[in-house]
Amino acid sequence: MKQRRERLSTYLKEKQIDVALINSPENFFYLTGFQTDPHERLLALLVFPEADPVAVLPGMEKGQLLDSGWTGEVIGYADHEDPWLMMKGKMDERGSGVQTVSIEKEVLSYGRSESFFGLFDEVGVEDIAPYMNEMRVIKDESEISIMREAAELADYGVKVGVEALREGVTEMEVIATIEYELKKKGVTQMSFSTMALFGEKSGQPHGNPGDRKLKPGDLVLFDLGVVWKGYTSDITRTFAYQSVTDEQRTIYNKVLEALGASLAISKPGTRIGALDQTARDIITEAGYGDLFPHRIGHGLGINVHEFPSMSHLNDGILQKGMTYTIEPGIYDPSVGGVRIEDDVLITEDGYETLTKTSKELRIIE
Amino acid sequence: MKQRRERLSTYLKEKQIDVALINSPENFFYLTGFQTDPHERLLALLVFPEADPVAVLPGMEKGQLLDSGWTGEVIGYADHEDPWLMMKGKMDERGSGVQTVSIEKEVLSYGRSESFFGLFDEVGVEDIAPYMNEMRVIKDESEISIMREAAELADYGVKVGVEALREGVTEMEVIATIEYELKKKGVTQMSFSTMALFGEKSGQPHGNPGDRKLKPGDLVLFDLGVVWKGYTSDITRTFAYQSVTDEQRTIYNKVLEALGASLAISKPGTRIGALDQTARDIITEAGYGDLFPHRIGHGLGINVHEFPSMSHLNDGILQKGMTYTIEPGIYDPSVGGVRIEDDVLITEDGYETLTKTSKELRIIE
Repeated sequence: MKQRRERLSTYLKEKQIDVALINSPENFFYLTGFQTDPHERLLALLVFPEADPVAVLPGMEKGQLLDSGWTGEVIGYADHEDPWLMMKGKMDERGSGVQTVSIEKEVLSYGRSESFFGLFDEVGVEDIAPYMNEMRVIKDESEISIMREAAELADYGVKVGVEALREGVTEMEVIATIEYELKKKGVTQMSFSTMALFGEKSGQPHGNPGDRKLKPGDLVLFDLGVVWKGYTSDITRTFAYQSVTDEQRTIYNKVLEALGASLAISKPGTRIGALDQTARDIITEAGYGDLFPHRIGHGLGINVHEFPSMSHLNDGILQKGMTYTIEPGIYDPSVGGVRIEDDVLITEDGYETLTKTSKELRIIE
Repeated sequence: MKQRRERLSTYLKEKQIDVALINSPENFFYLTGFQTDPHERLLALLVFPEADPVAVLPGMEKGQLLDSGWTGEVIGYADHEDPWLMMKGKMDERGSGVQTVSIEKEVLSYGRSESFFGLFDEVGVEDIAPYMNEMRVIKDESEISIMREAAELADYGVKVGVEALREGVTEMEVIATIEYELKKKGVTQMSFSTMALFGEKSGQPHGNPGDRKLKPGDLVLFDLGVVWKGYTSDITRTFAYQSVTDEQRTIYNKVLEALGASLAISKPGTRIGALDQTARDIITEAGYGDLFPHRIGHGLGINVHEFPSMSHLNDGILQKGMTYTIEPGIYDPSVGGVRIEDDVLITEDGYETLTKTSKELRIIE
């Protein structure tokens, strides 16, 4: 974490920014290692080009921050205190006037920006989010090791889901079983609402699970992930229940082929947009282009959707340590939908899928 | 919903505000009846003093908004379109220049405020949140009827939790069982992380459940709630497992007495702060004042924490239709903690507790 803060300080120095106010819980966690949900209260980290950073959080959480290993300065404010004034004091101690500040523009509320900017006479405002995204996009060994565990728990969730399938069970019952078993493994939060979609419901790319009962001949689509030690996973697998039609099999194999083709070019140096394009070309040439209405994937890390965006428009280049999903799909409400999704890590000379569940078409008896 | 929008328009007219930009999903839902999570995309409702409102949301959700009964104008934007420019067009159609706008200051991000204010030459900025809170603090019959259902599901969650208790079971296992059974009832979201705390863990007002195993003599504290049709519930009950000491019984009965005293004065006309003060006086006189470190409760509705704040400092007056929690507690790590919480509705001449689970001390065998 210290190294990350130093990197940010170096950037501020280069850009002649006097202070950065970090206040998303995600970036606070990334820079301090301390994860908390401050609800409506202020959580912030002040980072300076030269001086040491200051953590700002509700007083009742100060002990937990220190327990987590934070050795820097802390402003632990009580509900009746004004954390902005206390921050002003720390900034004054650090000397020389503030002329340019950097904030997370899409995170800091307008109301808080008024409080913050009000501390200074006149101040230039920069957005620090793009640089934070750039830092976070390359995962280090400690992050990768946690993401492996998160992906393993997602694999386990799919396994539990498959074992819960029986004729007449509802989508919600299967979801409840999956989350129940993951909770018993210590998972306290899913990365998003768990999906189990049966038959025609699987044919909607953003269907909502409900009371639909499982019938023979249904496709069954699972999409789920966990939050684990601050990092997320996200897996999709599709199965056939008791039988499969030729058309379902054709669609399945086409999606699998598209996924395989995107994986095959997943290595340092590849243009990111090529992954979507490659999969899309395969699906389009097979005549299913209109039934694949979303981008191929998204970056994965502390947030379940983060950088890089895996759109065909992304001209960025894959680098070692990037983690993202590849998740092509074909959705036909009359046949059902198929999506297959892996969590992918870019390695020295290729890739590794963090999710390990088999992708061959499986007919559940 | 139409009535609520008209009330807001009347307010804007009185205050000479030309347009309100509502962009919290909660207030959007309150004013339109349509509930959605836009993630990083913009969701907004433009409300005018005279003209009809305009809903702004991602194009792929437009159909769902219309299905929900919305008959007004809609801007459904695609990812490559600029919703701000489209909003500017609608505002221009509605004539006369915009001089004062109203936003939710603590919700709208600084980045979005730049986009919005950039549409105008020069503009005054007001905060609309206080008025929205004022509207939302009094619940109508349709809201109360949903909150009754939400509270009934919370009662059910406690019942499931009690039935899951057996020697050696962990806190997380009991939580998984509670959420599993609620999911089967159609609950897709809890209002907050479900708490089940055993023994010394119950003695921490914000303890985190984990692997602690249940032992005879433990106090068992459940704190949970559901989100149901857009509204929340929130219940706490504490039980003794197999046996109870005199000290545990004393604490329990003191908390129950404090809760009862606060309920007794819950009626239209009471100063809100008196509820906290009354409970606090009882607990303090018994010598446990230092072990009751939080306010007596919070408003409850679309948000699990909303207005009114049930602090002893609140000089507001209870009115018919207000809904809030009362949840006194005494936390002694060496004895365990007791908290008892009801969801309360202010009626014509008194109160009704929406949560119905018995509050008498119960020893689970």
